[in-house]
Amino acid sequence: MIRNSINLLTKKLISSTSCQRTRMRCFSSGATNLVDVNVNDKTGIAVVTLNRPPVNSLNLELLTDLSKTLDELESNRSKGMILTSSSKTVFSAGLDILEMYNPEPERSKAFWTALQDVWLKLYGSPYPTAAAINGHSPAGGCLLAICCEYRVMVNDFTIGLNETRLGISAPSFFISSFRNVLSTREAEKALTLGTMFSSDEALKVGLVDEIATDKADSINKCENFLLEFKKVSSMARAFTKQSLRKKDLEELENNREQDLQLFLFAINQPIVQKGLGAYIQSLKKK
Amino acid sequence: MIRNSINLLTKKLISSTSCQRTRMRCFSSGATNLVDVNVNDKTGIAVVTLNRPPVNSLNLELLTDLSKTLDELESNRSKGMILTSSSKTVFSAGLDILEMYNPEPERSKAFWTALQDVWLKLYGSPYPTAAAINGHSPAGGCLLAICCEYRVMVNDFTIGLNETRLGISAPSFFISSFRNVLSTREAEKALTLGTMFSSDEALKVGLVDEIATDKADSINKCENFLLEFKKVSSMARAFTKQSLRKKDLEELENNREQDLQLFLFAINQPIVQKGLGAYIQSLKKK
Amino acid sequence: MIRNSINLLTKKLISSTSCQRTRMRCFSSGATNLVDVNVNDKTGIAVVTLNRPPVNSLNLELLTDLSKTLDELESNRSKGMILTSSSKTVFSAGLDILEMYNPEPERSKAFWTALQDVWLKLYGSPYPTAAAINGHSPAGGCLLAICCEYRVMVNDFTIGLNETRLGISAPSFFISSFRNVLSTREAEKALTLGTMFSSDEALKVGLVDEIATDKADSINKCENFLLEFKKVSSMARAFTKQSLRKKDLEELENNREQDLQLFLFAINQPIVQKGLGAYIQSLKKK
Repeated sequence: MIRNSINLLTKKLISSTSCQRTRMRCFSSGATNLVDVNVNDKTGIAVVTLNRPPVNSLNLELLTDLSKTLDELESNRSKGMILTSSSKTVFSAGLDILEMYNPEPERSKAFWTALQDVWLKLYGSPYPTAAAINGHSPAGGCLLAICCEYRVMVNDFTIGLNETRLGISAPSFFISSFRNVLSTREAEKALTLGTMFSSDEALKVGLVDEIATDKADSINKCENFLLEFKKVSSMARAFTKQSLRKKDLEELENNREQDLQLFLFAINQPIVQKGLGAYIQSLKKK
Repeated sequence: MIRNSINLLTKKLISSTSCQRTRMRCFSSGATNLVDVNVNDKTGIAVVTLNRPPVNSLNLELLTDLSKTLDELESNRSKGMILTSSSKTVFSAGLDILEMYNPEPERSKAFWTALQDVWLKLYGSPYPTAAAINGHSPAGGCLLAICCEYRVMVNDFTIGLNETRLGISAPSFFISSFRNVLSTREAEKALTLGTMFSSDEALKVGLVDEIATDKADSINKCENFLLEFKKVSSMARAFTKQSLRKKDLEELENNREQDLQLFLFAINQPIVQKGLGAYIQSLKKK
Repeated sequence: MIRNSINLLTKKLISSTSCQRTRMRCFSSGATNLVDVNVNDKTGIAVVTLNRPPVNSLNLELLTDLSKTLDELESNRSKGMILTSSSKTVFSAGLDILEMYNPEPERSKAFWTALQDVWLKLYGSPYPTAAAINGHSPAGGCLLAICCEYRVMVNDFTIGLNETRLGISAPSFFISSFRNVLSTREAEKALTLGTMFSSDEALKVGLVDEIATDKADSINKCENFLLEFKKVSSMARAFTKQSLRKKDLEELENNREQDLQLFLFAINQPIVQKGLGAYIQSLKKK
């Protein structure tokens, strides 16, 4: 398998409008890329790498870049996307806690809105998606993985929506995606307990589809899955996927403001701020 | 097991009103029957055989006959129905492509309305239903099978909603029935990929309930399933089934016109006509 | 494991308002208790024992006492509840048939309203719940078990919603709870057939989570499950559980009157009264 390291920008220079090109250049060029995009020219599949060391905490900037990447893939009529991480041990540690501690109103709004955007675009994408989970994947990290249509997880890591262990509730769109993958029974047990699954446990309950030995193997397996769609009409595929996920997507689309207000209300509770403060202190001591 | 080959008509002559008798006679007598009905007088179970050689393509006439048969079974307070095929290799090849190629508006409407009718009557039937799947069962063939409450499949055939491989999307009521059988996760994967399952794979994901060695065995196993309902109140059973399938049934009942318009719009797209034309040409060459 | 036999009343005398204390005293003291409550002071987990010999038939008085117990547990911010039975062979035989035979209008209303109350409080409880199923558990007995978040069943008993075998349909809130545990496919098959599962079959389809050798073992295993919630925020847990069960809860909350009228209509059908009469006669002969 030949994988071309020329990024999406190069592809865009040939195939797209200058407007799109400009937007593309904004986030995929330079050394400060938070999201790295590499398209295999042969297959048309894009490997999208989260690249915000050390643990890909999802802050406003990373989410904004990811959101733009998803736009580009859509306007490019991407053949498929593999989401992975540049870290050797963490796929994504989830939402950046600093976005919620001592929140500044405007930035908090922009942060949550960017998260909603990413979810709507990734969960509802017309092109097929797979996650090569090459590290731990708690909370918001798990969210990105379950938005994809297929998950391959490298051994010896953990994954789950462990929000209740962090003293919070998973937002309703996190829950929708989780229920799209797990059975009602397993979802309830895992969400109330805040279960972090080992790779093998995740495979058993269906939270991931395959296990891989390392990152290359996980990307390879994701690619094999995405290549199966060569046999189907991409338009029919997109329509079918969106029909299946329609109720979940509409539930957030029709309640974005309410969902935002719920988030803002929650992070502004004194008890939540106190908890976050204590947690941040504990991290500093490590 | 004694199976009586006297068809439903004979039974009707004894037990029903002349109006019903007349309707019955229309579709179950003569050599041109598209749907053959045989009631076992001992058990009250009807074996309904699709009989439109060579592959039971669902055209307007077959669907109309099937729809009438389902009415008769209901007004007869049938003890149960086993749906099967007269072909040795195909349960049903699905919707007749000729109904969609160069469509004539009035006939297209009647065709799709007949399909909706069959779905509403079969998926919502008060009497218990089982499919003896004695041949390949793609697309609309699979639809008929998943409308039933139990499926026994003869080895060495394939089944699935493979619409995306044909360049189209499965209509929403196809999807409802599919999700009533498979898990959310398996349904999404199978519907987007257009998966055709072997008998064993179908058993594994729960798309069929049992495997049979041949047609007689499949009918026998369906009968055993239906006979279990001897222990239950048929009125309570019907009410329970319809409660469980209510949301799906209402979704189509409340959107029949919209669903019809979506079909008419789709088949009138030049790209769809082109695809159908090419497909028909390829069949002719075989 | 030290289990304290001091009942909830004692705890309440120390920790709660006099109003709550008074209500508590009403139903948990004296020799005529229909519901026995024992709180382990170390873990804060309450063992709630149904105690209406011989088979814990759910009549108005038992349901009213259970409803009050659930209120107390909630206002006490209980750490968890284990529901079990004082009988050696029956968890609960389900709704008391005498509440439906020759019904007196006012009592029938109160009876069904109490059942609705118990369901809403138990299925929607903020504290975690588990059922130690130490005997047969048909119909309404199964309902209580599936309202809980975890089920441990002693070997050699049976469980299921077998309403269709009794000539009736399971009410819609019974069905909601059942579907929260079983897959759509298994739920439909079991509800239409009125299946009573052995312990092993129940484990296989997921109707119970663990098998126990005896009552003590089942309570022990329930306790182990409930103690896992020590790791999570109880407020986040409660919010998550209620989000997951929200649609089911709202469906009854918004249709209580209609659901009541459906019950009253059903039990006042001559055919139902006749069936109940015959059933009661058959029980007397045993």
